[in-house]
Amino acid sequence: MKTAIVIGVGPDRGLGAQLCKRFAADGLKVIVAGRTLSALQAIVRDIEQAGGAAVPFVADATKEADIVALFDAAGEEPDLAIYNAGNNTPGRITEMEADYFEKAWRVICFGGFLFGREAVRRMAPKKTGTLLFTGASASLRGRSGFGAFNSAKAGLRTLAQAMAKEYAPDGIHVGHVVVDGAIGGDKIMTRFPDAASRQDSLISIEGIADAFAFLYRQPERAWSFELDVRTSKEKW
Amino acid sequence: MKTAIVIGVGPDRGLGAQLCKRFAADGLKVIVAGRTLSALQAIVRDIEQAGGAAVPFVADATKEADIVALFDAAGEEPDLAIYNAGNNTPGRITEMEADYFEKAWRVICFGGFLFGREAVRRMAPKKTGTLLFTGASASLRGRSGFGAFNSAKAGLRTLAQAMAKEYAPDGIHVGHVVVDGAIGGDKIMTRFPDAASRQDSLISIEGIADAFAFLYRQPERAWSFELDVRTSKEKW
Amino acid sequence: MKTAIVIGVGPDRGLGAQLCKRFAADGLKVIVAGRTLSALQAIVRDIEQAGGAAVPFVADATKEADIVALFDAAGEEPDLAIYNAGNNTPGRITEMEADYFEKAWRVICFGGFLFGREAVRRMAPKKTGTLLFTGASASLRGRSGFGAFNSAKAGLRTLAQAMAKEYAPDGIHVGHVVVDGAIGGDKIMTRFPDAASRQDSLISIEGIADAFAFLYRQPERAWSFELDVRTSKEKW
Amino acid sequence: MKTAIVIGVGPDRGLGAQLCKRFAADGLKVIVAGRTLSALQAIVRDIEQAGGAAVPFVADATKEADIVALFDAAGEEPDLAIYNAGNNTPGRITEMEADYFEKAWRVICFGGFLFGREAVRRMAPKKTGTLLFTGASASLRGRSGFGAFNSAKAGLRTLAQAMAKEYAPDGIHVGHVVVDGAIGGDKIMTRFPDAASRQDSLISIEGIADAFAFLYRQPERAWSFELDVRTSKEKW
Repeated sequence: MKTAIVIGVGPDRGLGAQLCKRFAADGLKVIVAGRTLSALQAIVRDIEQAGGAAVPFVADATKEADIVALFDAAGEEPDLAIYNAGNNTPGRITEMEADYFEKAWRVICFGGFLFGREAVRRMAPKKTGTLLFTGASASLRGRSGFGAFNSAKAGLRTLAQAMAKEYAPDGIHVGHVVVDGAIGGDKIMTRFPDAASRQDSLISIEGIADAFAFLYRQPERAWSFELDVRTSKEKW
Repeated sequence: MKTAIVIGVGPDRGLGAQLCKRFAADGLKVIVAGRTLSALQAIVRDIEQAGGAAVPFVADATKEADIVALFDAAGEEPDLAIYNAGNNTPGRITEMEADYFEKAWRVICFGGFLFGREAVRRMAPKKTGTLLFTGASASLRGRSGFGAFNSAKAGLRTLAQAMAKEYAPDGIHVGHVVVDGAIGGDKIMTRFPDAASRQDSLISIEGIADAFAFLYRQPERAWSFELDVRTSKEKW
Repeated sequence: MKTAIVIGVGPDRGLGAQLCKRFAADGLKVIVAGRTLSALQAIVRDIEQAGGAAVPFVADATKEADIVALFDAAGEEPDLAIYNAGNNTPGRITEMEADYFEKAWRVICFGGFLFGREAVRRMAPKKTGTLLFTGASASLRGRSGFGAFNSAKAGLRTLAQAMAKEYAPDGIHVGHVVVDGAIGGDKIMTRFPDAASRQDSLISIEGIADAFAFLYRQPERAWSFELDVRTSKEKW
Repeated sequence: MKTAIVIGVGPDRGLGAQLCKRFAADGLKVIVAGRTLSALQAIVRDIEQAGGAAVPFVADATKEADIVALFDAAGEEPDLAIYNAGNNTPGRITEMEADYFEKAWRVICFGGFLFGREAVRRMAPKKTGTLLFTGASASLRGRSGFGAFNSAKAGLRTLAQAMAKEYAPDGIHVGHVVVDGAIGGDKIMTRFPDAASRQDSLISIEGIADAFAFLYRQPERAWSFELDVRTSKEKW
């Protein structure tokens, strides 16, 4: 049975949760990783009820020991590893504490380094594996009011691009999905089922998962590094 | 029955032919367009033998009347239109005839304008449809020895991006597939079946067709404009 | 005496005129090229009254014979050649005539090829020379309502980038100035001297000329290909 | 007298030292900041012997207290602030210690945040000032073997872009100079005067300083955010 590790799975039942469900439905055993055990367990329960296989693993994406332990616990080398940690961190630079800027980087970029490094260390000897990162339009350019987020996301994307080139000769496929806009997660959809017009401007969470699944299935002779995903309503 | 129009289908049984076969296999009726009737007929025959539906249509991508006639002949509005015309046009600028530079643009970019315009004119009233363009790494940057090709491909890509934004409100999905490297077409594969090592460095033609098919299937709340495709051996 | 050829000098006393005046003031003999003789003569007169040297030359940037004649008339190889032809060509693709799309490309991009080719053909044997192109933010990305302009400008920029790489070994410096926003030309400034607040949002035409002059003066061991210019009021 | 603060001035008499000398020669009082007092003093001595004004200031770019003290010591608001700290940090990701990755970010990107924040905090009330960052081709894309450097440099560039947009309304000009290639510093030039052919492929350090000076002198109605600098020998 193939194994996937997904980190950045929170209580909001957002993209992380959807990625876990999607790859479990596709037949992979999924290690569901995040900071809140109860949230992880809820996802695992959903997956098991749907006939899939999943295990919760409590880990802080910014802690090296946690990430090493996560990959060790996965037993065999993972076939797929997804780094989905890190939320938006808005704020003007002149009013920003140094600690806030650093934490944005630590969750969004440094955690991606730790996770990506451990994934590739285990995949490279097997000469196969897929490592995917969640990006944003913020990964591509700086904008007023988003300096900390832009900086960290651009740092993650460029790291991912370097790794894509560095480990392609080892058979490792590294990809980056640019999510351009707000995501329509389970919570929003369940609570506001009548908000149909608003829904049109939220990116389909299943559609984003399709993009990750598409990258995962690509043959070694036709890999994509990057694709963008947005709704037809998005201004870009 | 859904209808696809693919232009840029030549006798080399390359990407154009593969795209026709792929969408026919997926259940669409395919209008197979290009300049050489016998080449088109051979593809149509293959598709019919495999149980699919296809029609040949002789058209020069650079002739406005041909493109209008092609879309008129398609009868109902097409659900999918793919612009795949245009080959590499190498050469140094100082040694280049003006006519050569112009022809490169005419096939690669101007034909894309004519084709894209007719596609959207027919799709927009229906508020649905997908328009895809074949790009290249040459679309993204200029390189010594490829000025004419780079210029025309960048012109096509930027036109596609403008159209993606302009017609998204009309429900039209415009996408651009960046093919980064040489393609492993039928001909190469049939003639040199023992060239296994070389094959590794040729992009899987089925893999490229998968990328087009992925874009075509995306829901309106999760559209991609662009993705790149290359082999694990490619230096980029 | 060093010689500059500037094409795209019109009756609006805009950037083309300013570039001529600037390089004449810097001591170069300037060939002032454009389609309207009276406009060229007016600029030449201004330059001469300021103690500079200039000659008018009537040429259509899209006509190969005109461009060859222009460079032939320059006598010795030019030290500096600037392609400044081409105005904005807005319009939606579905409502656009093919002829309009083609003309946009012909003035903006094809003329740049003809001009750039003739410049480099004459500069390369001398192993020195500077070839500069006027770009726009439209050169960098597609936007709704500007497909024709975007396509042509992106085609010009990518051609310039290819030429920068292709002719650097011959000692030719090729550069591209991205003008991001509306330009505050002589006419606007003279007619509406009280429009001080509006002026703030128009790019300083002297400031743009400074950018061209900066590129021209760069030593061979510190060349820039591209720089952007905008006002502090511009949203980008 | 105008004041400039330059950080990232080391004993190698490289770009940092050259920037200090250049702006002192242009009439600014320069605060020469770096970690090694003797190196700073040597530069100050050179500047004073040439008739300029300069002060050494020992500061670690990654320490918030040092950066705050540096700007406090500058007395009045600086007119120009340049962040030039951070060297190349090569290495493959799989063999990299987490601490190495973090330190690269801390010097290259986090220090740029601290420095840029303090600069703008002091410049914004005065509604004028220039903040410049030293970039590299590594700022623009990821490459095999340079993941840590690429990630940190891209993070710095995108922060700079966000700040350029965020503080333009306050009259602050933020710029980023992309140095593409190895720099020909004093040391190399003095020690190997006969290495003429090698010199051709090293970027002129005076030429880079010219680029910074050009950005500093731009009027508010013609600002550049970014320009690249390379030799004619560079492959890009």
